Amino acid sequence: MPIRLDSQDADFQDRFAALLSGKRESSQDVSDTVAAIISDIRTRGDDALVELTNKFDRTHFSVADLRISEAEIESAAARVTDEVREALQFAHDRIRSHHEKQKPEDHVYQDSLGVTLGSRWTPVDAVGIYVPGGLASYPSSVLMNAVPAKVAGVERIAMVVPTPDGKISSSILLAAKIAGVTEIYRVGGAQAIAALAYGTATIAKVDKVVGPGNAFVAAAKRQVFGQVGIDMIAGPSEVLVIADGSANPAWVAADLIAQAEHGGGAQSILITTEKGLADAVEADVDRQLNLLPKQAIAREGWDEFGAVITVASLDEAVVLANRIASEHVELALDNPDLILGAIRHAGAIFIGHHTPEAIGDYVGGSNHVLPTARSARFASGLGVLDFMKRTSLLRCDPSSLSALAEAAVVLSEVEALDGHGRSISIRLNR
Amino acid sequence: MPIRLDSQDADFQDRFAALLSGKRESSQDVSDTVAAIISDIRTRGDDALVELTNKFDRTHFSVADLRISEAEIESAAARVTDEVREALQFAHDRIRSHHEKQKPEDHVYQDSLGVTLGSRWTPVDAVGIYVPGGLASYPSSVLMNAVPAKVAGVERIAMVVPTPDGKISSSILLAAKIAGVTEIYRVGGAQAIAALAYGTATIAKVDKVVGPGNAFVAAAKRQVFGQVGIDMIAGPSEVLVIADGSANPAWVAADLIAQAEHGGGAQSILITTEKGLADAVEADVDRQLNLLPKQAIAREGWDEFGAVITVASLDEAVVLANRIASEHVELALDNPDLILGAIRHAGAIFIGHHTPEAIGDYVGGSNHVLPTARSARFASGLGVLDFMKRTSLLRCDPSSLSALAEAAVVLSEVEALDGHGRSISIRLNR
Repeated sequence: MPIRLDSQDADFQDRFAALLSGKRESSQDVSDTVAAIISDIRTRGDDALVELTNKFDRTHFSVADLRISEAEIESAAARVTDEVREALQFAHDRIRSHHEKQKPEDHVYQDSLGVTLGSRWTPVDAVGIYVPGGLASYPSSVLMNAVPAKVAGVERIAMVVPTPDGKISSSILLAAKIAGVTEIYRVGGAQAIAALAYGTATIAKVDKVVGPGNAFVAAAKRQVFGQVGIDMIAGPSEVLVIADGSANPAWVAADLIAQAEHGGGAQSILITTEKGLADAVEADVDRQLNLLPKQAIAREGWDEFGAVITVASLDEAVVLANRIASEHVELALDNPDLILGAIRHAGAIFIGHHTPEAIGDYVGGSNHVLPTARSARFASGLGVLDFMKRTSLLRCDPSSLSALAEAAVVLSEVEALDGHGRSISIRLNR
Repeated sequence: MPIRLDSQDADFQDRFAALLSGKRESSQDVSDTVAAIISDIRTRGDDALVELTNKFDRTHFSVADLRISEAEIESAAARVTDEVREALQFAHDRIRSHHEKQKPEDHVYQDSLGVTLGSRWTPVDAVGIYVPGGLASYPSSVLMNAVPAKVAGVERIAMVVPTPDGKISSSILLAAKIAGVTEIYRVGGAQAIAALAYGTATIAKVDKVVGPGNAFVAAAKRQVFGQVGIDMIAGPSEVLVIADGSANPAWVAADLIAQAEHGGGAQSILITTEKGLADAVEADVDRQLNLLPKQAIAREGWDEFGAVITVASLDEAVVLANRIASEHVELALDNPDLILGAIRHAGAIFIGHHTPEAIGDYVGGSNHVLPTARSARFASGLGVLDFMKRTSLLRCDPSSLSALAEAAVVLSEVEALDGHGRSISIRLNR
C-alpha cells in the first residue's frame, strides 16, 4: 500500500517532509571505480574500451567490432514492423516540429552610448548520446536526445549503447537512423562516457555528452564534467497527479501505474481535494494492476514509493506541488487553468483529463528527458538550447569607449588590476 | 618569454596541440577532503560551519556572527568613495539593462492536430552566490552574478564570502547592496558550498549555487550538483587576440598584459598575420610590464603561458581560434566583420580596435562570467537563463488525444510498458 497523508493531520508536515527527502535510489558510491575506468580509457584507449566492454557486457568484440556498421543498422531497421516504423517516424516528426520552435534568435543592438552589444547562438560541434542497454533501452529516448541536437545544428552525433550478451534492439537502431544518427558504438557504462569525453583511436572525442544511465554512467558524467559538457544526472521517473472531484478514478489510476511500472525507484503521487476520489483511485490501481501482464514491478513501485495525499483545497495542492517539484505534473481537473499558472516547479505539466503523461513520453512533441528528484527547482527538460551556446558580442568605437572608460578605470583600481585600467586608458586621446 | 609558433613550421601542429592541452592549473585532487567537509556540514550544521570557518579563515566567529548585519553592510558601503560608488552604480545599471534583454518569452501554441504545446519560464526560488575572498575578491563579479539572478526574478539571493583574518572589502558589500543582495554570510570554501546546498540552522538551503572559487569550492560544487544546480566550474582566465597589420601593437600588448595580470594560470595568446606586429607586440609587452606597479604576476603569467602565433591568413587564424575556444576573443582588425561570423567557439568576442576586453569586465553590460578552459565549445557565459527553468506544457482534448493515441500505444508496446499504453487507451471511447 502507498502511504496516505492528509494535510489536516497533526503530523502532516513531518510526514510530507519525510516523503520529500526519502531516497528512491541506492546511493552506491562507485566514484573510485569509475575514476579508475576513466583513467584506464585515457591511458590505454581502445584496448581498455574493448576489454571493459567484453567484461561487463559478456561479449567477445575486437576493436574493429566497436562501431556498428551501416549494413547492420540497415538490416536491423528492415526487421522492424511497418507499424512501429510509422509510429517512430510520426513521433520523430512531432518532436522535430516542436523543437524547431525552441531555436533561439541572435540579438544585436546599439545602446544609447553607441555601444553595440549582442548575443549569438551557435551549435556544439560534436555530441555523444548515451543510450542504456537492457530493460531501459527505449527507442523513444533515442529520438528525444538526438532530435534536439539535430535541430540545434550539431554536425556530429555519436551514439553509444551497450549490448549485454551481444544483444541490441532493432528499434533502437531504427530510431537512430530516423533521427539521422549513423555513428553508433556498442559500448556502455563509464568506459563509454570516458571514450566520448577523452576520445580513443576509434571514437573521436565529443564536446558534450547527454543521456541517462546507471550509477556508473552518472558518476562518470559527473567526473568528466568540464572536459565536456553534460546534461542533468537522471534519477528515477516520477509523476504527481493533482485531481479534484471531476477526475475519472480509473484514468488517474492508470496514470499512476504507468509511472510505477518504470521501476527502479519510480514514484507516483496523487494529491486530491476529494477523499472519495482518493479511495476510488487506490481501489482502481489495485484492480488495474491485476490486469497488467508484468504487474510485479509496478505493484512494488506503487507500494514502496506511492503516495496519496488529501488536501483541503487546490491552493494547498499547489503549495505541495511546488515543494515536490515533480518531473511530471498532471492536472486532472475540469478547470486546470485555475492553478496552472501557480505551479512554478515542474519538468512538464499535462493539462486536463485527456492528457495522460504517457502521451508526452512518445508523441506529444515535447521532450521526455525532464528533471527528476526535485531538480525542476532549478533545471529544465532537454531542449535545443542544451546543444547550443551563446557568445557575447561587444563593440565600441572611440566615442563609446570614451563614455565607458572612466567608470571602468575606477573599478580596475578598486580591484588592483592596473593592467586592466591601462588597456583602456592607452586607447584614449588625452 | 612566451612561446612563439608559426603555422608554416613543420612541427606546428604538434606544438599547437601541446599548447591546447597544456595544464594551467595544479590538478590537486581535493575530492576526499571536500566530501568529508560536506558530510560534516550535513551532520553538524552551524557548529561545523563555524569551526571550519574559524580554522581556515583564522577567525573567532560564533554562530551569531555568521550573517553580516545590515548595519555592517551600511557602514561598509558608506566608507566607499563617491567615485567608486558611482562607477559601481553605472556598471550595475548597464549590466541590468543588457540582461533585461535576455529574458525569455513563454510560448504556447496549438498544432494542426489540436494539441496545445508550450514552454513556460519561471525563476529559481533561491540562489547562492559564492564570492571568493582575498586577492580575487572582485566587486564587479558580485554584480555579474547577482544582477542576472535579480533580472530573472529570483526572490532570495544568499551570498557567501570568506573573510580571511576577518577582513572583507567594503566595495564587495557595496556591490551587493547595489545589486539588492542583503543576505550575506562570512563563510567560504567547501563548507560554504555545503551550507548553501544542504542548509544549516542559520543558512537556509538554496536551489542553485553560482560563482567562482578555488579548488575546494570547485570540487564542492561538483559534488553537490544534483542536490542543487551549479554554474560552470571556473578555470583561469584567458584572452585570444587576433590582429592584422592594422592593429596598434601597444594596445594589443596592453590587452595581453591585462589578462596575464590575473595570475593563477591566466593565459594570453596573440594570433597575427603580421610577423612585424608579433615582434612589436612582444617588445611592447616587455616595455609596458616595466611600467606596471605589480608586474611580477603578469610577467610570470606571460612568460609561462603566453603564446604568439603567426599565421598565413585570417582564415588560418579562425581555424585556430575555434580550436582554442577562448573565454575572450579580441578582433584587433580594421575589418573585424570579415571573420566575426566564422568564429564559432568563444565566450565573448570584443570587436575592433576600440573594444579592450577589460571594458567587458566592468561596464560593457554583458556578463564577465564566461566559459574557460576550452569549454566555450559547449558552454555559455552566465545569463538570465541560468536563473530560470523551462516547464513544458501539453494539453490534449478527446479529439487530439485520439489522433495521437495509436502511435503512442504502438511505441509503448515496443518498449514493453503496457501500463503506458493502457493509460492512453483507457481514455478512448472504443
